[in-house]
Amino acid sequence: MKTNLDQIMQDRNIDALLVLGDAEHNAPMYYLTGGGHVNAATLIKPRDKDATLFCNDMEREEAKNTGLKTITYSKYSLKDLRKEAKGDMIQIMALRLEKMLGDCGVNSGRVGVYGQTDLSASFSMLMATQNLIPNVEFIGESDMDSVFLQAMETKTEDEVARIRKMGKITTEVVGKVKSFLADHPVNEDEVLIKKDGSPLLIGDVKGKINLWLAERGAENPEATIFAIDRDAGFPHSVGTPDDELRLGKTIIFDIFPCETGGGYFYDFTRTWCLGYAPEAEQKLYDDVREVYEKIIEKMEINMPFGDLQRITCELFEAQGHPSPLNTEAPQEGYVHSVGHGLGVNVHERPWARMEAEGNLLQPGAVFTIEPGLYYPERDMGVRIENTYYARPDGSFEQLAEFDFGLVVEMKD
Amino acid sequence: MKTNLDQIMQDRNIDALLVLGDAEHNAPMYYLTGGGHVNAATLIKPRDKDATLFCNDMEREEAKNTGLKTITYSKYSLKDLRKEAKGDMIQIMALRLEKMLGDCGVNSGRVGVYGQTDLSASFSMLMATQNLIPNVEFIGESDMDSVFLQAMETKTEDEVARIRKMGKITTEVVGKVKSFLADHPVNEDEVLIKKDGSPLLIGDVKGKINLWLAERGAENPEATIFAIDRDAGFPHSVGTPDDELRLGKTIIFDIFPCETGGGYFYDFTRTWCLGYAPEAEQKLYDDVREVYEKIIEKMEINMPFGDLQRITCELFEAQGHPSPLNTEAPQEGYVHSVGHGLGVNVHERPWARMEAEGNLLQPGAVFTIEPGLYYPERDMGVRIENTYYARPDGSFEQLAEFDFGLVVEMKD
Repeated sequence: MKTNLDQIMQDRNIDALLVLGDAEHNAPMYYLTGGGHVNAATLIKPRDKDATLFCNDMEREEAKNTGLKTITYSKYSLKDLRKEAKGDMIQIMALRLEKMLGDCGVNSGRVGVYGQTDLSASFSMLMATQNLIPNVEFIGESDMDSVFLQAMETKTEDEVARIRKMGKITTEVVGKVKSFLADHPVNEDEVLIKKDGSPLLIGDVKGKINLWLAERGAENPEATIFAIDRDAGFPHSVGTPDDELRLGKTIIFDIFPCETGGGYFYDFTRTWCLGYAPEAEQKLYDDVREVYEKIIEKMEINMPFGDLQRITCELFEAQGHPSPLNTEAPQEGYVHSVGHGLGVNVHERPWARMEAEGNLLQPGAVFTIEPGLYYPERDMGVRIENTYYARPDGSFEQLAEFDFGLVVEMKD
Repeated sequence: MKTNLDQIMQDRNIDALLVLGDAEHNAPMYYLTGGGHVNAATLIKPRDKDATLFCNDMEREEAKNTGLKTITYSKYSLKDLRKEAKGDMIQIMALRLEKMLGDCGVNSGRVGVYGQTDLSASFSMLMATQNLIPNVEFIGESDMDSVFLQAMETKTEDEVARIRKMGKITTEVVGKVKSFLADHPVNEDEVLIKKDGSPLLIGDVKGKINLWLAERGAENPEATIFAIDRDAGFPHSVGTPDDELRLGKTIIFDIFPCETGGGYFYDFTRTWCLGYAPEAEQKLYDDVREVYEKIIEKMEINMPFGDLQRITCELFEAQGHPSPLNTEAPQEGYVHSVGHGLGVNVHERPWARMEAEGNLLQPGAVFTIEPGLYYPERDMGVRIENTYYARPDGSFEQLAEFDFGLVVEMKD
């Protein structure tokens, strides 16, 4: 939780956090500011002290709304900086950063750098600033395990409430998509058709998904997976916009929207066959569903998430499918991990990696469970995913309900 | 243009480009790949050679669609890397990057780093890789003037066609918003009301804007400015969702959507007073409009954009408004620059900065013209913006048409 940040900084011997970039669609900045239209900002948080948010003058009102101490960049006269830097843009940025750090009392020590930002400009500024203040050491952290990811790994009830609300929105939209598909007539080739007789396309479905999300105050900055047939065999293929929707083919519908402005995410997947499921598709689905139910039974509070990944691999291998347990980088069968944490990042700690330490299903964790099987050469794939919350009382809560059914009954 | 990249690299003594991050919502990666759901990718382009795109196995199909040479990360055995790195995640990433660079023939020289990406992870990886291959020097560039921004500064006809299409979508949506507002009845306090008698709010209007954009295959990842009254006095205030819409107050409506998936942008602003315009608001609008018309007359092919900024400042100062020409960081009057280039970035070269060299309105440039005046303490602001294309024949094309009118006639 956010309240753990100072302790985590101390454990890692980090004296200050430097976060760069916009307040929206930028997880560490969003986490500390709560979002808002504050672009190209700089946030400095020394250990055991409050953060200061530096921003452009034009966005000072938006910045104030974050509730943080705010200083506008105009405090540092661009005219003077330009003179001092002899017009060099990188040096101007470095001189200004030196002054901002100084104004926050950061003149030495280890400064962690963060933010979803322009790497080129940030890298050049950091290298030039390092030359100006050699007593400061800028350090980066792995995206598997930063100060922020460790803090974000446990959520407050307020954060969970926002994720739960996104779960409600997400499953509402999935329900609308299901009805929308079921309402379409089918031609002699078992292809869904629109009123004008032309085939309904994946692109049309995605347009509706975007509309229905927008209506509910959500957006999908990371896209939506709606993949049919061979595409369903590739876990991250988002689907081909011009593809038709044919009965009896597996459709993987993986939707992971966030609050408008880049706040909390939800993550949810169902696999559908329109009209009917052929034997092979039904068998693949049954295998995944069986493993899903067993995993849910095996979940225990405070267990390492990686243990659940090992269990999932063993279960799939017992069914005869390859998995990462005994095949390196398998191209078919079970090819990914059983889940991941989520919050202001769609993927965050805890990680379900067999080799990763920590990453417990501890109280406060919010994470997905998403076993799947993929056979692109057999034109099919199946994944089932729900998001869970490890409650303070040690129980697990599925954050949104939706039926698991494979076959979508067509109305016509 | 993209075809100039090798020459620009040579001029800047850059031996290779290293671009990190997703293919979408990441301008340099989008520019070279054309987008697609390819996440956490690595693109390496040595000078005078083709680029190679490295990606996760799960996204290999999406990566192939870019038309680039593609290698999946599984080529570099994670098991072996983990052993070599003794489990250290940062070192694993560095070892893999060393191998990817080697496979592209990059074993020495100056490597420019780019991408909208996780600064912490990228910075840690680059510092660790630098230790592994000391003959490679990673360099960042200013976000005012990188290799990419210089290449992007001139557009092909294909790129302009996509921007023009976004202009059509943008102005269609603006037209719908205008009718939507005009159709609302007004109560005794001159506030627009909905069917249920409650006030229409800015948040409602923004919901409609998002819907209408989504319907047309566009999105607004950088938000939309719809700011009334005092908010209109701050150029980058996006507006307060709970604000009511009152007759006679200035509304700044600045909309800058892009193609879904993070492609080409458009940028457009109108200022409206619903029902009627009080004298002071009308005067402010007339001042901006007068300056706008004069600027358009003064535009000449190949002129420095900064000269146009100077002219704009002089024109506003002649009207009695403060400007950056003689006031540093003015808080009211004319407070920003007269425009900016746009393409796969909403803001890019050419820059309208008096002190910036280059940045010409050369053939192929696409840029905004957007003079404005801001008086937050008088509860008003005005900005007018259109996007222009400097054609190869030396003429300027306004890329989308829309009426300039300040007053929106209410139907009721």
